[in-house]
Amino acid sequence: MYDVEDNLFLLAGPVDLHPRVQRAMAQPAHAHRSPEFTEVNRELFELLQDVYQTDDPVLCLSGSGTSAMDAAVGSLVDGSDMVVVLDNGKFGNRMAKLAHRYAGEVTHLEQAWGQPFDLATVDQAMHGADALLFTHNESSAAFTHPIEDLADIAEGHDALVIADCITSLGGIDVPVDELGLDACVSGSQKCLGAPAGLSFVSLSERAREQLHEHPSYYIDLPQYLDRWQDHQTPWTPATHLHLATREALRIVLEEGLEERFERVHRVAEATRTGAQALGLDLLAEPEHRSDTLTAVEVPDGIEGEELLGALKQEGIVIAGGQRHMSGEIFRVGHMGQVDVREIVAFYANLEGVLRDLGSKVEHGAAAQAIHDELGR
Amino acid sequence: MYDVEDNLFLLAGPVDLHPRVQRAMAQPAHAHRSPEFTEVNRELFELLQDVYQTDDPVLCLSGSGTSAMDAAVGSLVDGSDMVVVLDNGKFGNRMAKLAHRYAGEVTHLEQAWGQPFDLATVDQAMHGADALLFTHNESSAAFTHPIEDLADIAEGHDALVIADCITSLGGIDVPVDELGLDACVSGSQKCLGAPAGLSFVSLSERAREQLHEHPSYYIDLPQYLDRWQDHQTPWTPATHLHLATREALRIVLEEGLEERFERVHRVAEATRTGAQALGLDLLAEPEHRSDTLTAVEVPDGIEGEELLGALKQEGIVIAGGQRHMSGEIFRVGHMGQVDVREIVAFYANLEGVLRDLGSKVEHGAAAQAIHDELGR
Repeated sequence: MYDVEDNLFLLAGPVDLHPRVQRAMAQPAHAHRSPEFTEVNRELFELLQDVYQTDDPVLCLSGSGTSAMDAAVGSLVDGSDMVVVLDNGKFGNRMAKLAHRYAGEVTHLEQAWGQPFDLATVDQAMHGADALLFTHNESSAAFTHPIEDLADIAEGHDALVIADCITSLGGIDVPVDELGLDACVSGSQKCLGAPAGLSFVSLSERAREQLHEHPSYYIDLPQYLDRWQDHQTPWTPATHLHLATREALRIVLEEGLEERFERVHRVAEATRTGAQALGLDLLAEPEHRSDTLTAVEVPDGIEGEELLGALKQEGIVIAGGQRHMSGEIFRVGHMGQVDVREIVAFYANLEGVLRDLGSKVEHGAAAQAIHDELGR
Repeated sequence: MYDVEDNLFLLAGPVDLHPRVQRAMAQPAHAHRSPEFTEVNRELFELLQDVYQTDDPVLCLSGSGTSAMDAAVGSLVDGSDMVVVLDNGKFGNRMAKLAHRYAGEVTHLEQAWGQPFDLATVDQAMHGADALLFTHNESSAAFTHPIEDLADIAEGHDALVIADCITSLGGIDVPVDELGLDACVSGSQKCLGAPAGLSFVSLSERAREQLHEHPSYYIDLPQYLDRWQDHQTPWTPATHLHLATREALRIVLEEGLEERFERVHRVAEATRTGAQALGLDLLAEPEHRSDTLTAVEVPDGIEGEELLGALKQEGIVIAGGQRHMSGEIFRVGHMGQVDVREIVAFYANLEGVLRDLGSKVEHGAAAQAIHDELGR
């Protein structure tokens, strides 16, 4: 029987919460302008800079990842700008919608979900462009763009780089200053391991110089930047989410960024190995497969919905495909705290479910392949 | 010594959380598109309609009260509209900023903080107007507008009524359908007794007909309305705040709306009586004094900051004045679950603090006056 509070939670975000993060919310109300809460913000803002690997401000919005994406594009791009946007998945498409809403001219490059862009084509499209917009880790297709190459292309055209790193930052190395990202967007409930409801955006010096009033009052970044140095937000923050996210970021940094990226990569490799050991195909091309989630093609003869439903009955929560990929793929999230243990547990259960559904897979095949790979 | 987690919390929002609300957040991560979480939303949305006293949709945004104010004004008002806005406090002024951002023409009526508007003047200003915008309960001055009169004036001019009821709804009777409010905005952390981070807006049929794309993508109400009937939000919601707010609304309705408004009124009367028994003056005019918080003038010879600091050392959290009223007034919140017990406790402690600061007040004077009034 499925229990909403007790299960193996491998979603592509929100992610499982560490008990410490859970406990951080077990607090009475706080006065959000008090010195005590200002200190919460001070530490939160500083931890965000550490995780972002930047000396620039990282602003914190009470709102989902989309709010910070919207805030970044709308505060940096206006009707006088020409921008290039990369769209090869659901979130790249959302970025394109934002580009069309705020920019004067948009070069909207499209690819099939999970397919990479030809870098020379991107470079060519960037002639005369003011900004390059893309989704670093496209979770709808478990696809990762080569962020360094894209940032270099934008730099070559003296254009701003606005990157949606919602499902990469804290799980895949995104050294914001080193890469020269002008605005890097992230969210609380993905690789950072906090509950949903906060989002973040860094602003390089160049971005701060080009910052203008956002058409919306609520997500107007100049007002956030103005209050940032005093460790405040312009509007009442979601206090309990600030407390939870502070604790989540402490955990990220206690593990260590480098160690975390290594673990996430090791878990991703285990996930890919396990799928292949069961004869399942992966969606994205090898060199673009994401380390924070894996998209697996539903085998022929099995209904995607039925597979997800059967897993859920076993108490296993994973994600299905979105939009036209619904029923075609399933997605295993390995962001946040997920370790090899849980991936092995997932495949051991998946094997049973696949056999129930008539697929001929061997018990233990995934675990064996994963352990072989790890040299156990 | 002040303890951030253990104190008498009488802020003008956020408010003290009921232990049940606190516990509602003590949950692991939820899959926000699952049938189980859809059921959380279904109940949350229905409870919102009950508290709003409306059959119309009440949309739920992950963002502070300002996000829903911005969403309402920007989705209902555009450059072709002339609007009238009432500004006699910090939040009326914020509403005016929103009006100036989105409307073609703004008649910006101003009054000193806590001073009422002449209704005939408002009526005259409404000639040719498309909407009337105001803050029902102006918490910066503990002032309440006569919402029925204002709604009637707008109706007489066939104009939309957009009301910020962030610090009134759930504490003061706001029967949205009966009053004919087209958009009624509220927030989670005030009279509803939930943590900060969610905000709400109702939309009348007339409002839904006039709804247009908001300049911002994130707070674009047509997208929220589109998903509302399926008990969904367009973007990932702040799941833990949905759970907490659902529990808070259950508590509101278990008490009963009428009983709650009567309690809040009784507590407000007690607060006003206590202040007057100590010879302290109240800011707002008698017929406009708010039932959800009280603004008291700091007595001559006492520094407002010193008074607040001394109270805090006793473990008592109240609000100071905002902007130019800083140091001039203190504000006692009695939203949410606050009862007479806490007001009596507040004054008993205030008496001691005032005596410490050199003011001649009698021990027990406030409690005696309050109990006399209650016929105890």
